Amino acid sequence: MSTVKLWTDKAAAAVPTVKAVFDDIRATRKSDFVNNFWRALANQPDLLERTWASIKRVMIEPGTLDPLTKELVYIAVSTANSCSYCVHSHTAAARAKGLSEGQYAEFLAVVSMAAQTNSLANSMQVPVDPEFMIA
Amino acid sequence: MSTVKLWTDKAAAAVPTVKAVFDDIRATRKSDFVNNFWRALANQPDLLERTWASIKRVMIEPGTLDPLTKELVYIAVSTANSCSYCVHSHTAAARAKGLSEGQYAEFLAVVSMAAQTNSLANSMQVPVDPEFMIA
Amino acid sequence: MSTVKLWTDKAAAAVPTVKAVFDDIRATRKSDFVNNFWRALANQPDLLERTWASIKRVMIEPGTLDPLTKELVYIAVSTANSCSYCVHSHTAAARAKGLSEGQYAEFLAVVSMAAQTNSLANSMQVPVDPEFMIA
Amino acid sequence: MSTVKLWTDKAAAAVPTVKAVFDDIRATRKSDFVNNFWRALANQPDLLERTWASIKRVMIEPGTLDPLTKELVYIAVSTANSCSYCVHSHTAAARAKGLSEGQYAEFLAVVSMAAQTNSLANSMQVPVDPEFMIA
Amino acid sequence: MSTVKLWTDKAAAAVPTVKAVFDDIRATRKSDFVNNFWRALANQPDLLERTWASIKRVMIEPGTLDPLTKELVYIAVSTANSCSYCVHSHTAAARAKGLSEGQYAEFLAVVSMAAQTNSLANSMQVPVDPEFMIA
Amino acid sequence: MSTVKLWTDKAAAAVPTVKAVFDDIRATRKSDFVNNFWRALANQPDLLERTWASIKRVMIEPGTLDPLTKELVYIAVSTANSCSYCVHSHTAAARAKGLSEGQYAEFLAVVSMAAQTNSLANSMQVPVDPEFMIA
Repeated sequence: MSTVKLWTDKAAAAVPTVKAVFDDIRATRKSDFVNNFWRALANQPDLLERTWASIKRVMIEPGTLDPLTKELVYIAVSTANSCSYCVHSHTAAARAKGLSEGQYAEFLAVVSMAAQTNSLANSMQVPVDPEFMIA
Repeated sequence: MSTVKLWTDKAAAAVPTVKAVFDDIRATRKSDFVNNFWRALANQPDLLERTWASIKRVMIEPGTLDPLTKELVYIAVSTANSCSYCVHSHTAAARAKGLSEGQYAEFLAVVSMAAQTNSLANSMQVPVDPEFMIA
Repeated sequence: MSTVKLWTDKAAAAVPTVKAVFDDIRATRKSDFVNNFWRALANQPDLLERTWASIKRVMIEPGTLDPLTKELVYIAVSTANSCSYCVHSHTAAARAKGLSEGQYAEFLAVVSMAAQTNSLANSMQVPVDPEFMIA
Repeated sequence: MSTVKLWTDKAAAAVPTVKAVFDDIRATRKSDFVNNFWRALANQPDLLERTWASIKRVMIEPGTLDPLTKELVYIAVSTANSCSYCVHSHTAAARAKGLSEGQYAEFLAVVSMAAQTNSLANSMQVPVDPEFMIA
Repeated sequence: MSTVKLWTDKAAAAVPTVKAVFDDIRATRKSDFVNNFWRALANQPDLLERTWASIKRVMIEPGTLDPLTKELVYIAVSTANSCSYCVHSHTAAARAKGLSEGQYAEFLAVVSMAAQTNSLANSMQVPVDPEFMIA
Repeated sequence: MSTVKLWTDKAAAAVPTVKAVFDDIRATRKSDFVNNFWRALANQPDLLERTWASIKRVMIEPGTLDPLTKELVYIAVSTANSCSYCVHSHTAAARAKGLSEGQYAEFLAVVSMAAQTNSLANSMQVPVDPEFMIA
């Protein structure tokens, strides 16, 4: 079901860049599990390295948004882009970060309400109110 | 720039359903401003009434997600769906609810990182790890 | 606001393929109005000719779906794809083919309900029931 | 393949809101079949109840658009949003409402023609003709 | 997993239009393999015939863009539209036309970079610079 | 028309990170023109710096795909994502890199053909041929 080969740990061990990223994923997440996204991206070691560095910076390093909020935003984008893999992996991540059933229910209500009103605004081509424009 | 007429307050005053919704928007938001989305939807009074009732329930009534998180999820979906109107109106709403520049910068980083990895997962058609499936 | 030049009638008159398509648009629609889509596509005469031939065959020649239903399907796709130009032009076309305000209100309700449930099915990654599969 | 648990009838029987919706789905459709969308949404009883109420109102109650036209619009949106579940379920629904092979062929021609011209209008960024604007 | 029946060679043999297209696909590609897209589209012989004629003209006939560039553009669109089938089939086609691993890595970097900056430009609603407008 | 302020050169001069990026954009492109995308992103200096670094690496440093091919892939993604800003800026960039009218016509034909067949494959939910799967 993939257009690329998924790298095993054995294959990864033979390419230093890939091995280093897989090791860092395990150390950062304190888990032995390396999910398929990284095993697919390993075919392009340079892109693997840069993408993991970005994910660490954006999703893992502490900032002003809490980690659960970031995961919800990630799932929202992935849903709208119809990325099955990303919806699955980030919903699992949100749960690991404490998403309750009540929060998930509200999240689904917001995401689907946004999709609904996006559709209405786009069908009626509603002009933006000047009050909403900054520049 | 619109495919429908935008209702003035005078037009709204003549149709009880529309008037009631416009009045409730003003009372709920404690502001005289009724934005173009509702003025466009007023052409379909029944849909106007149901959409406003949903927005109140999903976005305004207190729940387990804080109001700012809901707005960020809303902007994320609207960005992915390329709904110019919705991005404008909900970014303004997020700011009114206290979005700081630092939070907005992080939000943009998350949204665009999600779009980037969605694109990678969709191009490589990465198979979902069994660990992420519930049913 | 365009990435290509829009052809005037004078420019069209100098290129036989473009002139022939513009003439046929006018004859087919019994109107002197040639909208910007065709004036933009005129930069690529071959694509102009093939696209107009397809539009005539799919949207204008009589078939088993009535013309108004076809326009509604067209607007639905254009809304989901966020094509501002297409939403405007096909909403105008639907009105010219007799779309009533009541039908338009119902159409907006269906389009936005579909967007909402698409979003729910995509976020929950609902597995397709075997009953719905043909092959 | 799902990010949520699918509710069996036994699980549904234990939660009054869920049981009531499942019962109403069966009574309304005059069929014992409750498809996975509702079994997934049952995890959020409140959203289940509101979504089913909207579907009944928009898709099942008689209006000015015929039921088959509504299903075609629904499939068109679901195709553009790449919602596999929704395309499957509403294509089955359209067939149950009498969609002929000839109508389906024409529908596919319209949907794909719309996608094609959306793409052309979006690449050339064709400016909307003033003739198409209402407000 | 399909909403339509997939035509076997035996079924195709009984319908002249379908048989002629399948024969031409085989002759053009110098291969006995007819992929599922055409076996699905065979349910609508007229659409099958027109779609194959377009594919031949756009993707197979020599032009000013080289065949590999066309395949990369095709995969890029299919990724953004989340068309799993099309990503698979055109990635295979690109490889058959000589796509190297290094080129594929760069392609993935470009596609995902574009998705990322699309998302940034759409969230910030950046106004188009007059320098970029033709008309 | 924007949800953020666009930075003037004067404002940029006061923030070292922003000034450094603007200077590098000018030096790299050998042009005084800094387009609005960067003036908008300047509100988030850290994201500005990382995004410009990625663009340089992916789009400007020499690789195995030629610069014009990369721009065409970029426009293709931007068209499918309906990013008006990105379509405008990268179509201008493609022209600056030598895109001929004939190549542009072929590009438009490929992009719109892809959108059309994406739509067909997604509506019929065509199952992926095993021949196209790698893993």
